[in-house]
Order: sequence, then structure tokens, then C-alpha cells
Amino acid sequence: MNDDRPADFRARIRDSFSKQAAMRTIGAELTRVEQGTVEIELPFDEKLTQQHGFLHAGIISAALDAAGTYAAYSVLDPDASILTIEFKVNLMSPGRGERFLFRGEVTKPGTTIIVSDGRGYAISPDGPAKLIASMTGTMMVIRGREGIEG
Amino acid sequence: MNDDRPADFRARIRDSFSKQAAMRTIGAELTRVEQGTVEIELPFDEKLTQQHGFLHAGIISAALDAAGTYAAYSVLDPDASILTIEFKVNLMSPGRGERFLFRGEVTKPGTTIIVSDGRGYAISPDGPAKLIASMTGTMMVIRGREGIEG
Amino acid sequence: MNDDRPADFRARIRDSFSKQAAMRTIGAELTRVEQGTVEIELPFDEKLTQQHGFLHAGIISAALDAAGTYAAYSVLDPDASILTIEFKVNLMSPGRGERFLFRGEVTKPGTTIIVSDGRGYAISPDGPAKLIASMTGTMMVIRGREGIEG
Amino acid sequence: MNDDRPADFRARIRDSFSKQAAMRTIGAELTRVEQGTVEIELPFDEKLTQQHGFLHAGIISAALDAAGTYAAYSVLDPDASILTIEFKVNLMSPGRGERFLFRGEVTKPGTTIIVSDGRGYAISPDGPAKLIASMTGTMMVIRGREGIEG
Repeated sequence: MNDDRPADFRARIRDSFSKQAAMRTIGAELTRVEQGTVEIELPFDEKLTQQHGFLHAGIISAALDAAGTYAAYSVLDPDASILTIEFKVNLMSPGRGERFLFRGEVTKPGTTIIVSDGRGYAISPDGPAKLIASMTGTMMVIRGREGIEG
Repeated sequence: MNDDRPADFRARIRDSFSKQAAMRTIGAELTRVEQGTVEIELPFDEKLTQQHGFLHAGIISAALDAAGTYAAYSVLDPDASILTIEFKVNLMSPGRGERFLFRGEVTKPGTTIIVSDGRGYAISPDGPAKLIASMTGTMMVIRGREGIEG
Repeated sequence: MNDDRPADFRARIRDSFSKQAAMRTIGAELTRVEQGTVEIELPFDEKLTQQHGFLHAGIISAALDAAGTYAAYSVLDPDASILTIEFKVNLMSPGRGERFLFRGEVTKPGTTIIVSDGRGYAISPDGPAKLIASMTGTMMVIRGREGIEG
Repeated sequence: MNDDRPADFRARIRDSFSKQAAMRTIGAELTRVEQGTVEIELPFDEKLTQQHGFLHAGIISAALDAAGTYAAYSVLDPDASILTIEFKVNLMSPGRGERFLFRGEVTKPGTTIIVSDGRGYAISPDGPAKLIASMTGTMMVIRGREGIEG
């Protein structure tokens, strides 16, 4: 975790996130960026539901993948970029809530491969946050390939 | 694969899919429904992109999960429903193309657990379909729980 | 986590583990059993190596799977048993060390599905434990099927 | 799949496999080596069982990982080596049989990342081979790091 200019990684992540039209489409917001930890939040929206009216597993997965990927991003040197190679999601409880919080954390930094873990929570006004999903993702660090910066 | 009324499983899958607002939001269409195989197609749309302008990995995963889940659905008896327990996605090539095809297939049917595999392809007018992602998902068969039918 | 007779789950897990000839073959010992947490240790042995002389990834995976499965077992009621449906392992560093510790922990208990996470560490006399692998596994709770008790 | 000297990759794989003491310990034999496909077979042995007397899930996983890794190896150039980054296994049926066959196949070759899929089968004298497990694994191609050749 070798970035001594914290402002930089935050700015780079916010910039990259703002270019992800898919995150805008699902209403995801970047709410926390630390070295090794990124949080994304999502208000419930009927347009993101599955057939029983809960948040769609695919949307949960998309938000968890993004949180884990940006967590990995936060420990990169400024001239590198990142690709998600693969991830696994466990869906534990229905996506029922007013808001959802997705936290990605770096489990293993590395010069070539970074592993992130993530957890997704449903948040309701009348109770504690509920764990609804977990994720493990593997990211590859990319250097010097045009067109995939950021 | 115990449904002797093929029309039924097709109708039930089309009905369930049409209730998934998230699939509408990402523009996914159900283009093939056979026993054990389901295909979903998606035209490229700028609102589904990541920061380099390609189809977002989270959207690829959402479509693959849906294809695998409905493939499992297609081998269920009519009074059962299904929950995705977990899935893993490998992202192999950028989501670059005019359209995308996601095929889910049942690898192992079962009375309690069904395993599906999936493949995602980018389709361009000027070349062969390109494999961009694969998925393995584990689904649980649900019977007699109110509120999650279909 | 509904067992109010802690002695029981410990005895049942030790009994089951002692019947796993594969664990004996690889030299694994059950070194800690708490509700929700199980640890397995393994001394380095040349007969468990891959081609570069390190602990084989398959052996790492076998021990992590066992730790995660017994962690799930520790939160079961006494008349239930458990099957591993699937697991995923990330291999982070070579299996180089004098001993190895594998810790499984229950992330999500449940009446039908239990999710465990695990971490594997290499232990050397001259330094801190090193994270070499992580695991997420999905287990199904089984009741009343003959022949698979324990 | 760029090796024009087929004898070479076969010899290199057989040589590497013969150095995996863990494969010897579990009684695994390399029974087929083609470009992109490798098979490993294992006779049932009581020393590899879990508590119900079937082949241990960890041993199934170890053999599937090896088959998938050597399948990836078979499409490498001669001066490269390979590391398993991660794999996922679905366990579908008990490991009950006289022999077991594990087939690994390359799904996506690549210069840096190779994805393999695998299937495990139980073989009995009195019936067809039975699918007992599937695997997807991600391998990284390594060049020029001392000590991990082969």
C-alpha cells in the first residue's frame, strides 16, 4: 500500500467511478474511500428488482464487484490500472431494505494480483444492518496498456 | 427434468422474467428457453458501461446469473421455485460489441441443489462471437415458502 | 448457533474428524474447536509437496475445506449433518513453512445453508504467520438421510 | 496454443507431475495429455476417505486443480511456468466408486491469464461414469522467476 499521496488515490477513484455509467444507472454512490477500503451505497429502487420485489442478485453482485475493485485500486501506484479477473458472490438473504451498503476491502495486496473481499448489507430504519451477501474477487494490476487507464 | 408440459415451464419463465425490473432496466431480453438451457441477449448501451466504455463487469455478471438461474428454473417442477445461493464469474475479455449473448445451462439437476454453468459472448457484425465471460452458479430449490413463488 | 451443550459439538466434531482417513493421510490435526470457529494444523511434509517443494495447493484446499466444514458443523443441532456444496480458494503465497494453520469461521449460519470463510497461514520459527490462502464455502444442512450422519 | 513441438509439452508435464509428491501420496496418475486437455485418474483408497467412507472432497479438489493446472500448462510456451491463482469446486455427488477420472480443459488461453474448467467422474464396473464435481480455475503465466520453473 504504497501511495504516499492519499489525495491522489481518492481523486483517481472518484474520477474513475464517475465514468462508470453503469453505476449511475443503478444509482450507486461512492460514499467512502480509504486505502484498502471502499464503500458504495445504493438506495432501493423498484427498477432494480427481481420478480419478488427485492434488489436483484445481479445488482448486488455488480455493486460488490465495484466496491472490491475500487478497494484494490486504492492500493495501486498512480500509473497502474486494474482488471477484475473473476469474482464469487454468496447471496445470503433477500435484498430487502431501504438502502444497501457494499464494502470492499483488500485482503492481499500485490504487484500483479490483488485479492479483495466484500460484504453487502441491507439497511432499514427500524433495525440493524443485515448481511445479505459476501464476495471474493481477484484483480490483475495492469501497466502500460493503452486504452484501459483508470 | 421432470416437466411433461413444456409449454408450462416456458410460460412460467417468461412470466417471471417479465417481473424482473432489473432485467428491463439493463435492456435484457429472454431469447431462448429450452429445458436446461436459457439464453438472454442484451444490446450494447452506453448507460451500462464501465470507465473505458465497455459493458460493465457487473452487468455481464447480472445477465449470466439470470441465464443460469432460469436454466435451473426450466428443469423444476411447476410448484417449486429457486434461489441463487452463490455464483462465480470469470471475466475473460472486455465487454466490447454491439450485442451480447448469455447462455445458461444446467450441469447438474437435483431435487434440492441445481448447478448451472453459463457463457457470455460479445457479438459484432464483422466477426465471430467472442467468449467474454463464464459462470458457475449454485441454486437451491424452494418449496412451499410464501412470497417467493416464481 | 443453537447448541446449549458445548461439550457435545466438540465431541461430535472430534469424532467425525477422527473418521476422516484423508486428514490422517495428510497429517492434519484438529487444534481448536469453538462454536463458529475451527482450526486445523498441518506440519510440513515432503510427501505433500508440488513440483517446487512447497505445500501443494490441493492439500491447502483440502485443509481449508475441512476447517470451513467443521466450523459450520459446530453451529448445527446435534441431529443434523452437513455436506459441502461448493467452495472457492484463493492461493496467495507459496505454501512454504514449517507448519500451516487453517482457520474456518461461520459467516452466515442458517437452517438450510451455512456459509463459512477460511484463511490459511504458513508458520515459520523466524517470522510472523503469513497468509497463504483464503476460502469461502457453502454447506447444506442435512437431516434424516441415512448413511451420511456425522 | 502455440507449441509446435507436441512431444515437448507432454514431456514437460509428465516431468512436472512426477515431481508432485502430493499426487503420488494420493495415488494420482496422469493418464492423458493433449494440448488443452489433461486427465488424471485415481483409484479409490481407504486412506483418502471422509467420515462416511467416500473419497474426501479435499482430495477431489486437489485432483481437479491438478488436472486444470496441467491443462493450462499444455498450452504454454516452453519457457513459461504457471501458478494457480484461485479455483472453485462444486461437489455434486458423493465420491463413491472404484476409480475416479478428473479432466481439465482450457476454456480461455492467454498470455497472462489462463482459465481452465474441470469435471470429476466416479467410475464403477457396473454402470456409467457419474459426474461428481466440477471446477473452474484461474492460472497466471509466469516468466523469468527463478525457483518456480516447471
